Amino acid sequence: MQTTWTCGEHDGKMPRPVWEYLTVSDAAIDNVFLPYEIKATQAHTAALVHAGVLTKRDRVRLETALKALLREARAGRAVVTADAEDCHTFVELHLTKRLGALGRKIQTGRSRNEQALTMIRLYLRDKSSAIRTEVQALKKGLRALAKKHRHVRMPGYTHSQRAMPVSVATYFESFRDSLTDDMLLLDRTMLVLNQSPGGSAAGFGLPSPWPKEVVRRELGFRKVQKNPVYCQASRGKFERMFIFCLENLAATVCRLACDLVMFTMQEFGFFSLPAGFTTGSSLMPHKRNYDVFELARASRATIAAAGMESGLHGFNLVSGYHRDLQRTKGPLVKAVEEMLSLLTVLRLALGRLAVNEDRMRSAVTSEMHSTADALALAMSGVPFRDAYQRIKGNLLPQKPPLAPPRATRRTRHRRS
Amino acid sequence: MQTTWTCGEHDGKMPRPVWEYLTVSDAAIDNVFLPYEIKATQAHTAALVHAGVLTKRDRVRLETALKALLREARAGRAVVTADAEDCHTFVELHLTKRLGALGRKIQTGRSRNEQALTMIRLYLRDKSSAIRTEVQALKKGLRALAKKHRHVRMPGYTHSQRAMPVSVATYFESFRDSLTDDMLLLDRTMLVLNQSPGGSAAGFGLPSPWPKEVVRRELGFRKVQKNPVYCQASRGKFERMFIFCLENLAATVCRLACDLVMFTMQEFGFFSLPAGFTTGSSLMPHKRNYDVFELARASRATIAAAGMESGLHGFNLVSGYHRDLQRTKGPLVKAVEEMLSLLTVLRLALGRLAVNEDRMRSAVTSEMHSTADALALAMSGVPFRDAYQRIKGNLLPQKPPLAPPRATRRTRHRRS
Amino acid sequence: MQTTWTCGEHDGKMPRPVWEYLTVSDAAIDNVFLPYEIKATQAHTAALVHAGVLTKRDRVRLETALKALLREARAGRAVVTADAEDCHTFVELHLTKRLGALGRKIQTGRSRNEQALTMIRLYLRDKSSAIRTEVQALKKGLRALAKKHRHVRMPGYTHSQRAMPVSVATYFESFRDSLTDDMLLLDRTMLVLNQSPGGSAAGFGLPSPWPKEVVRRELGFRKVQKNPVYCQASRGKFERMFIFCLENLAATVCRLACDLVMFTMQEFGFFSLPAGFTTGSSLMPHKRNYDVFELARASRATIAAAGMESGLHGFNLVSGYHRDLQRTKGPLVKAVEEMLSLLTVLRLALGRLAVNEDRMRSAVTSEMHSTADALALAMSGVPFRDAYQRIKGNLLPQKPPLAPPRATRRTRHRRS
Amino acid sequence: MQTTWTCGEHDGKMPRPVWEYLTVSDAAIDNVFLPYEIKATQAHTAALVHAGVLTKRDRVRLETALKALLREARAGRAVVTADAEDCHTFVELHLTKRLGALGRKIQTGRSRNEQALTMIRLYLRDKSSAIRTEVQALKKGLRALAKKHRHVRMPGYTHSQRAMPVSVATYFESFRDSLTDDMLLLDRTMLVLNQSPGGSAAGFGLPSPWPKEVVRRELGFRKVQKNPVYCQASRGKFERMFIFCLENLAATVCRLACDLVMFTMQEFGFFSLPAGFTTGSSLMPHKRNYDVFELARASRATIAAAGMESGLHGFNLVSGYHRDLQRTKGPLVKAVEEMLSLLTVLRLALGRLAVNEDRMRSAVTSEMHSTADALALAMSGVPFRDAYQRIKGNLLPQKPPLAPPRATRRTRHRRS
Repeated sequence: MQTTWTCGEHDGKMPRPVWEYLTVSDAAIDNVFLPYEIKATQAHTAALVHAGVLTKRDRVRLETALKALLREARAGRAVVTADAEDCHTFVELHLTKRLGALGRKIQTGRSRNEQALTMIRLYLRDKSSAIRTEVQALKKGLRALAKKHRHVRMPGYTHSQRAMPVSVATYFESFRDSLTDDMLLLDRTMLVLNQSPGGSAAGFGLPSPWPKEVVRRELGFRKVQKNPVYCQASRGKFERMFIFCLENLAATVCRLACDLVMFTMQEFGFFSLPAGFTTGSSLMPHKRNYDVFELARASRATIAAAGMESGLHGFNLVSGYHRDLQRTKGPLVKAVEEMLSLLTVLRLALGRLAVNEDRMRSAVTSEMHSTADALALAMSGVPFRDAYQRIKGNLLPQKPPLAPPRATRRTRHRRS
Repeated sequence: MQTTWTCGEHDGKMPRPVWEYLTVSDAAIDNVFLPYEIKATQAHTAALVHAGVLTKRDRVRLETALKALLREARAGRAVVTADAEDCHTFVELHLTKRLGALGRKIQTGRSRNEQALTMIRLYLRDKSSAIRTEVQALKKGLRALAKKHRHVRMPGYTHSQRAMPVSVATYFESFRDSLTDDMLLLDRTMLVLNQSPGGSAAGFGLPSPWPKEVVRRELGFRKVQKNPVYCQASRGKFERMFIFCLENLAATVCRLACDLVMFTMQEFGFFSLPAGFTTGSSLMPHKRNYDVFELARASRATIAAAGMESGLHGFNLVSGYHRDLQRTKGPLVKAVEEMLSLLTVLRLALGRLAVNEDRMRSAVTSEMHSTADALALAMSGVPFRDAYQRIKGNLLPQKPPLAPPRATRRTRHRRS
Repeated sequence: MQTTWTCGEHDGKMPRPVWEYLTVSDAAIDNVFLPYEIKATQAHTAALVHAGVLTKRDRVRLETALKALLREARAGRAVVTADAEDCHTFVELHLTKRLGALGRKIQTGRSRNEQALTMIRLYLRDKSSAIRTEVQALKKGLRALAKKHRHVRMPGYTHSQRAMPVSVATYFESFRDSLTDDMLLLDRTMLVLNQSPGGSAAGFGLPSPWPKEVVRRELGFRKVQKNPVYCQASRGKFERMFIFCLENLAATVCRLACDLVMFTMQEFGFFSLPAGFTTGSSLMPHKRNYDVFELARASRATIAAAGMESGLHGFNLVSGYHRDLQRTKGPLVKAVEEMLSLLTVLRLALGRLAVNEDRMRSAVTSEMHSTADALALAMSGVPFRDAYQRIKGNLLPQKPPLAPPRATRRTRHRRS
Repeated sequence: MQTTWTCGEHDGKMPRPVWEYLTVSDAAIDNVFLPYEIKATQAHTAALVHAGVLTKRDRVRLETALKALLREARAGRAVVTADAEDCHTFVELHLTKRLGALGRKIQTGRSRNEQALTMIRLYLRDKSSAIRTEVQALKKGLRALAKKHRHVRMPGYTHSQRAMPVSVATYFESFRDSLTDDMLLLDRTMLVLNQSPGGSAAGFGLPSPWPKEVVRRELGFRKVQKNPVYCQASRGKFERMFIFCLENLAATVCRLACDLVMFTMQEFGFFSLPAGFTTGSSLMPHKRNYDVFELARASRATIAAAGMESGLHGFNLVSGYHRDLQRTKGPLVKAVEEMLSLLTVLRLALGRLAVNEDRMRSAVTSEMHSTADALALAMSGVPFRDAYQRIKGNLLPQKPPLAPPRATRRTRHRRS
């Protein structure tokens, strides 16, 4: 069903598969961005009044139509389809249908390149704030766990071997501190991204002066991004910066998830979740699986791959917009949605996490105190390296590498 | 709407966001695999007859129900939703609803781990054949272009500088040869993948002997993949191998697309497409854009990123199934569908590609013959390096690096 | 040549290939870090005095020995080899050899895990400052080019097609603005990274209180990174954050390099470099190649791949140090050194870049003004979409998509 | 020390940092390729005789000089330095110095682009054979372990939870089977790569007929790669295909390494290595670390990153040689050398791996037989899903999810 709208991308007769290749996936994802496109269009009307293209009355009529469209979009009644190419043309078409000549004025002095920049930044601002809220809630959950079990010590591992004891509080707080830094990076990255590209048009600005400051103010951007060539060059770049912040967050969460997958193994038994958070097997009746932690681990891979995809589109390309850049929208939305689900689900799971203190205590075996012993000697004046050797000498006869439990140790010695 | 199906993954009370995180995206993608799951289930009934679990009559009843389900699936009336978790449970539920106790027998001796392996391989076999067909068609298009313009020469570039002339036939045939090798790799990779995992169950086989050969024969696999631990370990691995073959194909196509984006620039004008294959701008009335080639370039990035994602899921994990591996289905389907669209669209575009022979001819400038001149001297007995220096010496006075056209050359000389 | 040093990693009899696999590449790269390890050790002596392990006199002796070692390292006389495993053990061995029992005290209360964290951060701080200096110089070069050619306009491209004119000043300034944002990101990331891990030991802290603030002050870190588990978890993470900032810088530079590769093609001729900056061919006498811009483009790939490698080491691993993390040093150093060379070389090349204004002027063809014409109409009251259509209508008869130059246009029409 | 050799890349006055950026790293890596370049040059002399450029006597003189050079290269006396740019120019310079005018003839009809293609393929052929040998040895080690412990069963895990028992033989054989498939892929990929690019020159062939078949025969390639544009386009592509085969091998080895890191944890104790294969800690006297398995895991990341880097160089570039492609040599050599070390070291470690059968036996807990029980019921006629529910019902009261189950806790305490 090709539209005959002639300003658009497809005024010739385009074969259907080509048409679908060019528009279908893009139209689908553009519904995510539609509210931000509408908001950006509202700000553009202010610029058009300032530029003398619209009267204040015109602006009121446009605002009314845009608000109605936003309501319809939220109610699922206004949906961007491939017919409209993308959400930008969709809004123009909509306004033209409702307001005639007035609608045909809306595109004065802007280009879809600029519009995409603006709406994506509004989306990033909105989503960074949603992520902040979720991270806060997750940090609260971590703090609660840290407090509740603060008097218990668990084994700390290096090289996946028992190293030194560590308090459960320190353990959980380590994720809080990591999340704090991750959010610091996100907040600081948002300061860089929070720039108004209004007036950049197709990436080369406009022939006559443009009220860039008006647009900036309307949309609450921190500053005007003055250079139109740079505005265009930040397409994809800013998205990549944002996704990197999510990767960083996801890496922190992934470390927790990896730990929890291991620490819920029968061999450890440090933690458990109630049955409602675990899944079963279609073949093995006894299985209880911690899919929720496995997928929390997988989410990092999903988000990292979205970052990689985002970086590949436009790789080694010259300045100026390329259609390739439109493909950066998909991985961005995927990374954001994955991040939000991940944070919610992990918070819920942590809220029900049982800590099996007895298993932890019994896992803190005696040799894990050897470092403390060596340091105590060192504080009493023995050079540390000598103290270390002395303690090591004491350990060795009783503690062969990879000490098996008493019962099996004999067997092993006989064999080796 | 949580199911109460008790064999499944979620027989406790799972909070809705957790439920969605675990199942929603997976159920959506499982509709792609449903026909292959049905086919695998048909083969499984043969194994169950052989193992004495089912009678031949049972098998006929199951076959009938499965065929009906396949018809419904194709007609879009049988749809895997999150309620059923995944297509494996969906089929079991369906058979149980229709056939009662008989349906409750279908899962004897298999696990969803094994089922996923089987159905994905059937999918790969099917799609590799679809890709082969599309590649053949694309190669035909390339040959047609090569034949039609065989007498014309265009500039060949190295370091993006004019190097030596090359015939349009050689140019287009280079893509054919590359596709031939790419398909060789795909075909040979398929030989590796074409193994029957039937009987591997959850990755540790079955306690009693299993008619693995029966399953293999039913599904036409080349050989039985005997070791159940390896069967499980090939989850994700085989998908990654397959996607790599697609990356390889996409890289060939991307080279062509990159060339066509450049060679349709006004500065070259070697090729053009009719208006119906190009798009316009919302701001700039004169623009005709070759989005189709830009997206063909972007498709490589999309497929490469799918390969990367596929490789990240399960990275650094121990043996045995992990839920992370379920996430390898998404990138696989994405890569396959992108590949098929890309091949179709490019074939259509090449079918309408105009070759501007005059522009090519005039771009083969005289200095591009210097290599032929030096070689001619060398064939006459002058050591090549001396011939090279002699020709170079002749060139230099007239040909400053980066020769501008006559009109501007004078200005430039004055400045430099 | 296995050492018999018994505190180290290899006090058993390790087969030579295993020994090499474990140490050789690491020892090589550790020479880069040796000066930072020495500085970190100096700060550690302050902590040891504060903790009562050393006297002030001890400290003086250690300081003297460390300063001497630094001088030897700088002169290339003190070199970390595989015998010493790594630079940490190298320093301990060295102090022990020179100062006996006093040297055997240096390791009191610290671990190589902590030492690696500290020295790498000192390295990052040092290198970020070197990069800042280079970026400033590059920006100066860009500004000079912008100023010198500010009155000239060149074609701006979208979809690689001529779009709208843009001034050479705006063009070059776009890279300056991009670099400014890139440095903003780096500076803000450094604020996150600038934390003192002193006292974290093996990632689980120390049994008794430790003067963390003393270490922080000595090394000028912004704050103490209190949680030892998080200190350890930031190994690899901080490096990845840093490399991402370099990727971001490299992406800006790569855009410039891609442009310059294209704009120095004979078809454009917008820019050129003197012969001393270009290379020749071993076969083709006439070639002048812009390898310098091609490699500047390739540097982005090198740095991005270093970021990917850095992210892969430790992927999906549980908390606590793993030997895998040692592998993050290589890509870090590679990315830093590549970045610094790239910035230097590009600055030198830009300093000699000739701008061929005539070629630019003649490339700004008349149809590139159509947007200005449509906007002028729109400012006079015609709805923009109508103005756009009117201008487009005027263009079409004379301007078929992909306009070839006058001479060839006729030919093309006859053919199509 | 810039050479004044005028055929080369740098006949102008190139600033030193630019010079280093262009040549230094490349010259270093070219020593790896020098023997293959010499071999390719020997074959080229046959073509030159056939083409009438050289006499048979000339060829003998060249062969003698080349053989001498090969001996010097192997003895470390002939070393490519940045002065010679790369190994191709190095060989030409060398022959010219020794043989005068005859040396100046060697470059007739070939280009460094073609030479790089040829020598890299000879390198790939050589290294694939070295890898095959190492893999065979590793497979032998796996078989020995499988045989020795064939009567023991260990727990199989899914979702990192105890699933079903599996024999140690099946476990180790799974890696053998995986390696067999990986080698199948490598061998089949080598069939694709084993093509002779001789005669492709700069990627556009030669003006007169060339004895391509002579070159092919001399070098033992499977077939002539006829299309010169495709020859050039396979630069980077073939390397990427080869590295992918290594990634595939490394992924198999990484799975084993991940298992061994976990199974040597105190909580499992299934395997151990003698002290000489483990390392210690600088702080913790009791630590024995399995760095060898951790680095075997990390090697996969190193090789995968090399594959990514290889794919990034040349990404989105047009046809024809670009200097970027020279950067694909580094990751190729890195991946190959890493692979060979990894295989050697792992084989040595497996040869000394102790299998703690008692720990394995005691880890195969009773609930792991529930699947066998359910299947036994199903074979007796109970629909499997009913049998599953019945067994599950029996299990549930005693077996809360992740029990530090009462019954076993006591046992465990007794044991530890």
